[in-house]
Amino acid sequence: MPTLAKVSARVTSQLAAAWVAMAQEARDLWVPRRVPAVDAFEVTPLEFHRRYVGPNTPALIRGGCRHWPAIRKWTNAFLVERMATSPVSVALTPDGRGDCLVDGRYVSPYEEQMSLERFFHVLTDPGSNAIPYIQKQCDSLHEEFGRLCDDVPELGIGRDLFTHLDAANVWIGDSRAYSAVHSDAYENLLCVVAGVKHVTLFPPTDLPFLYQRQYARGQYARDSSGEFRIEDCGENVVWVSVDPPDVSLDEFPLYEHASPIEVAVEAGDVLYLPSLWYHRVGQTPDAEGRCIAVNFWYDMQYDSRYTWMRFQESFAGAGR
Amino acid sequence: MPTLAKVSARVTSQLAAAWVAMAQEARDLWVPRRVPAVDAFEVTPLEFHRRYVGPNTPALIRGGCRHWPAIRKWTNAFLVERMATSPVSVALTPDGRGDCLVDGRYVSPYEEQMSLERFFHVLTDPGSNAIPYIQKQCDSLHEEFGRLCDDVPELGIGRDLFTHLDAANVWIGDSRAYSAVHSDAYENLLCVVAGVKHVTLFPPTDLPFLYQRQYARGQYARDSSGEFRIEDCGENVVWVSVDPPDVSLDEFPLYEHASPIEVAVEAGDVLYLPSLWYHRVGQTPDAEGRCIAVNFWYDMQYDSRYTWMRFQESFAGAGR
Repeated sequence: MPTLAKVSARVTSQLAAAWVAMAQEARDLWVPRRVPAVDAFEVTPLEFHRRYVGPNTPALIRGGCRHWPAIRKWTNAFLVERMATSPVSVALTPDGRGDCLVDGRYVSPYEEQMSLERFFHVLTDPGSNAIPYIQKQCDSLHEEFGRLCDDVPELGIGRDLFTHLDAANVWIGDSRAYSAVHSDAYENLLCVVAGVKHVTLFPPTDLPFLYQRQYARGQYARDSSGEFRIEDCGENVVWVSVDPPDVSLDEFPLYEHASPIEVAVEAGDVLYLPSLWYHRVGQTPDAEGRCIAVNFWYDMQYDSRYTWMRFQESFAGAGR
Repeated sequence: MPTLAKVSARVTSQLAAAWVAMAQEARDLWVPRRVPAVDAFEVTPLEFHRRYVGPNTPALIRGGCRHWPAIRKWTNAFLVERMATSPVSVALTPDGRGDCLVDGRYVSPYEEQMSLERFFHVLTDPGSNAIPYIQKQCDSLHEEFGRLCDDVPELGIGRDLFTHLDAANVWIGDSRAYSAVHSDAYENLLCVVAGVKHVTLFPPTDLPFLYQRQYARGQYARDSSGEFRIEDCGENVVWVSVDPPDVSLDEFPLYEHASPIEVAVEAGDVLYLPSLWYHRVGQTPDAEGRCIAVNFWYDMQYDSRYTWMRFQESFAGAGR
């Protein structure tokens, strides 16, 4: 008679085999090898919905925001002058890793309010022990950058394709900061104003290969001399374990079945980043040393895709 | 140490619990209690795609085909005269159950070519031992009813919403014939010309509650005196076990978690029946004793919904 451990191992390997088969079928049927690019002026909203939003497939809309006044106006000097002393929320970390796993814990960044002038000073100060990243997802475009709103008007395709705009957020940083792999329950239009965003996408069907697990939650704090330390928050969070591009296959063997897709989103381009897709976001700054993006989050449809994701989570050892 | 049987039972009950939770979540989030109705002239194709096709949700398009010449022209006399001796495929069964489970086998109907005049004769002959149903799904509108095509032109919304029309089929029968629960890998526009179609819909997430199983395949044959017998085809087919409305909960206990939705599709109305949804179709004839429908099958998107269905099938003991 097999032991419980042996039976469990068999069930686990049966599940893993089914997941691997599903990922292969997903690649055969619908997951693109690279993100399809469309010209902003060559696709109707209906066609875009039919080709990308309905099937939950990413697309790069070339030139989707090249008409924005921000594209030509937003020099650092202009931004500093327009924002004046108006405070903005800045994430500070010792190494660019906020909302990431650090030493086996999920750690949120230290957050500080400062003027945009001060932010650019910290960003370009080679002596600073803190890496700053403007990444607050609280509808920060309207909450904190209201003075700049008119330069980045909501895209017509966003209003046409989706129902309710939930938040628009401003992202400013350099290549040291990145966002670790995660997924959002939002339809996302990621619009790049300056620099390049490098996005690694994983289809939702890759869930079992990304090793979502429970982690203790911590938060960066700073002492009076500015040194960082991690404080325990006394709660847990479910987070993806892998951090590409360097993933240990010894530690995460199923990762070899994942289907990462890389896309570079340049100034003036818009990435349609579908709900539920996992993504990691890095960046290359422009000649002024910053990458700037504005993203629009719209309500997603909670349909069978969502319930299947949850079903699968319950067997991937990663229920929320 | 638990035995293998006990562990398997535990895994099975764990799976069942996850399925039941998923079905509850599906009802909470997206499966409608009744099929939403929209007026054909009050919804744009983009809005229809956003509200129904994208989320894979059925909708009744009231008046969607009321402009068809067929609606006023297709009396039995007109049809017989127009079709003349042109042969059409007719399914014949002793009890209206073709493509159904009969005595533990999946049985296809006996099929015969006959004129439409002969079909109506058999349909209305109280002494006939055969129940006829025009239900051939071979693009029969164009293949066999070409003379009537102009009276049921493809709907504009079909061309707008979907990519490729794969087949259009004609359905004529009375209340004795029905289609057992099944799902199609097509987006379907079911257009009723005369009588009423009664459709019972199940969301794809109900898969585990419908008990898909392997059945031996048979086919009705008739001897020279017209008596029916079932011949074995020597192959298997995966088919849904339950046959609502009378489902034994002793035999199929998980069926109690299914979410059947009833909708009556009247003459001039169009049902958008999304790909992957399970459906049973019955009918009420009009004053002339027939129910007539034409359905348009369009290519579906093979996306994550499809791969999740297949994943789930592999654990529902019903892999194809």
